[in-house]
Amino acid sequence: FRILVTPGDGIGPEVMEEALKVLGRVERRFGHEFVYEEETIGGAAIDRYGVALRPETVAKAKASHAVLFGAVGGPKWDDPRAAVRPEDAILGMRKQLGLFANLRPVKIAPEMVGESTLKPEVLEGVDMVVIRELTGGLYFGRPKRRWESAEGRQAVDTLRYSEREVARVCHVAFQLARQRRKKVTSVDKANVLRTGQLWREVATEVGKQYPDVELEHILVDACAMYLVRRPASFDVIVTENMFGDILTDEAAMLAGSMGMMPSASLGRRRKDGTGVGLYEPIHGSAPDIAGQGKANPLAMILSAAMMLRLSLGLEAEARAVEEAVDAVIREGLRTPDIAGPGAKVVDTRTMGSAVA
Amino acid sequence: FRILVTPGDGIGPEVMEEALKVLGRVERRFGHEFVYEEETIGGAAIDRYGVALRPETVAKAKASHAVLFGAVGGPKWDDPRAAVRPEDAILGMRKQLGLFANLRPVKIAPEMVGESTLKPEVLEGVDMVVIRELTGGLYFGRPKRRWESAEGRQAVDTLRYSEREVARVCHVAFQLARQRRKKVTSVDKANVLRTGQLWREVATEVGKQYPDVELEHILVDACAMYLVRRPASFDVIVTENMFGDILTDEAAMLAGSMGMMPSASLGRRRKDGTGVGLYEPIHGSAPDIAGQGKANPLAMILSAAMMLRLSLGLEAEARAVEEAVDAVIREGLRTPDIAGPGAKVVDTRTMGSAVA
Ligand SMILES: CC(C)[C@H](C(=O)O)[C@@H](O)C(=O)O
Ligand SMILES: CC(C)[C@H](C(=O)O)[C@@H](O)C(=O)O
Repeated sequence: FRILVTPGDGIGPEVMEEALKVLGRVERRFGHEFVYEEETIGGAAIDRYGVALRPETVAKAKASHAVLFGAVGGPKWDDPRAAVRPEDAILGMRKQLGLFANLRPVKIAPEMVGESTLKPEVLEGVDMVVIRELTGGLYFGRPKRRWESAEGRQAVDTLRYSEREVARVCHVAFQLARQRRKKVTSVDKANVLRTGQLWREVATEVGKQYPDVELEHILVDACAMYLVRRPASFDVIVTENMFGDILTDEAAMLAGSMGMMPSASLGRRRKDGTGVGLYEPIHGSAPDIAGQGKANPLAMILSAAMMLRLSLGLEAEARAVEEAVDAVIREGLRTPDIAGPGAKVVDTRTMGSAVA
Repeated sequence: FRILVTPGDGIGPEVMEEALKVLGRVERRFGHEFVYEEETIGGAAIDRYGVALRPETVAKAKASHAVLFGAVGGPKWDDPRAAVRPEDAILGMRKQLGLFANLRPVKIAPEMVGESTLKPEVLEGVDMVVIRELTGGLYFGRPKRRWESAEGRQAVDTLRYSEREVARVCHVAFQLARQRRKKVTSVDKANVLRTGQLWREVATEVGKQYPDVELEHILVDACAMYLVRRPASFDVIVTENMFGDILTDEAAMLAGSMGMMPSASLGRRRKDGTGVGLYEPIHGSAPDIAGQGKANPLAMILSAAMMLRLSLGLEAEARAVEEAVDAVIREGLRTPDIAGPGAKVVDTRTMGSAVA
């Protein structure tokens, strides 16, 4: 198994080290060999090469089974108008690897319920996966430009979707729902957007091919409410790129901290069900706590578990890692971001070693 | 004072009746005369005239001091691809009256804290106004179309903003913040959108004219998190149309029910600070409970209070209505949507009469 490792900026390298520690334990225990290559990306790559993502890095990613991706960015490169920006690394990877489906599971361990700002009874039974379309919509649509007219500065972004783009991500949602509670919630803004109408139409058509799965349509504003009001009612949510960006961060807050939320970005699958995927925590590079041993490595470790399952086809190994995470949480180990009063606070490395 | 009343569909007419009851009491107590005109809009207008909003209705709105707007829509007209749709009424009013700033206050009465899915300690001190740009962005940008190509169906919506559109709504935010806790949070997606870059730039420039007001910029995905995580940290939030649609519904859920959330939509102000405004609850037409006396009229009544303040310049009268609403809540009167265990459940009319 060939794995490309891109540690990134801020806490990226620290949490990556712990994920690799856990994967090392998986190799020994299950008798695998993972071959790693490491590439500099994001802000670190801007400093070193003048770009956030080199073509060589993309080529190596394509030749790998999976990419383990640390977060990118930091105040040093924080100028939205700069010609090269750390975000180019993640946006470029997604687009150039064709990773059109971003899976973000939201599940809260019973021991973690206290960390949430929501009442415990509202969190009972929360177990959803949000699937975000990742290579279309406002992120990549053209024209995307700024200009000066007689009336002053102007800017435009383009929200564009094709039938094919909507259909393929909806198939991912229905296939996943089949292995779960058999319910798909498709989220759009069909009452205002033409792309929303297309989204709803195509989701309905794809749904007909999965008669065993229930399909509901809700508007994006209603979804933002229901995620707080009755989160346990969702199984699989599927939505377009920008709505998914907003709703997944909101959903992550149900768990109280983003420090435990993994994600998988997938493109076309091979016949055996696996495919090149990119695995990253949904948290950022958190430059304010970088290098202090305070970062929570669990999101990166759980992302590695998703990689074992979805790109390497190693289900038992994935489960072993997830169970180890559950166990350290049950034992009461906490990094500062998830430490309630009286918790056993440990540093990044101790947490990683405990899981390993 | 000339007021155009558009009761709308579903529970619209029921809650409007209660708002008018309260305004009648204001007339008598404070010695005003409100001259009402009523117009059919939304689904009811589609049935009667074939369109959701007639040009005559818009003309009457322009000749009024304010529009009291009930919610529109219902399953009968629920086809996003239909040529005429109830939503045309609200979108047309906003655009044709030039109502570019939508104000949605979020404040939770101590007695209502139990209704929220958030923990009481998180809600302590929540008192914010979200200002949503209302006549630009994805809602109105062109091209907005669907077509068929060799690769199948395609759709596009356009997110467009001009410097002028961003600046005028930011001024509303800073002026409001001056009368409050002097903090503006500008929400954008500057790391991905060109319109987001423009938004951030212009917000910064406008902010320089209000050196007494603190300005912070956050990304829309982070804002979706922070609204759940630390809602009390916000004073005035300002954002573009679609982000505002999503974030205001999320923020409304802090209060547990949308049944109490009013809104004001404002355009250019006259010299005396007032201006034609449109006032509507942020809840929908709730066809499932229409005609059963279950609707909560408080959002419509509080919208009327905002009208008294912002379009008629009647501050004392606005306060009297708001205090009456606080009083009935303190006395324990509850419509079903906000009735916790053991509450005194009353119907729509009883609630309206109690406030009056
Ligand atoms: C860093 C940024 C470009 C990215 C996005 O908007 O997709 C991030 O917010 C995410 O959700 O992965
Ligand atoms: C009915 C719909 C067009 C409207 C909107 O999206 O603006 C509504 O959701 C709102 O927030 O007022």
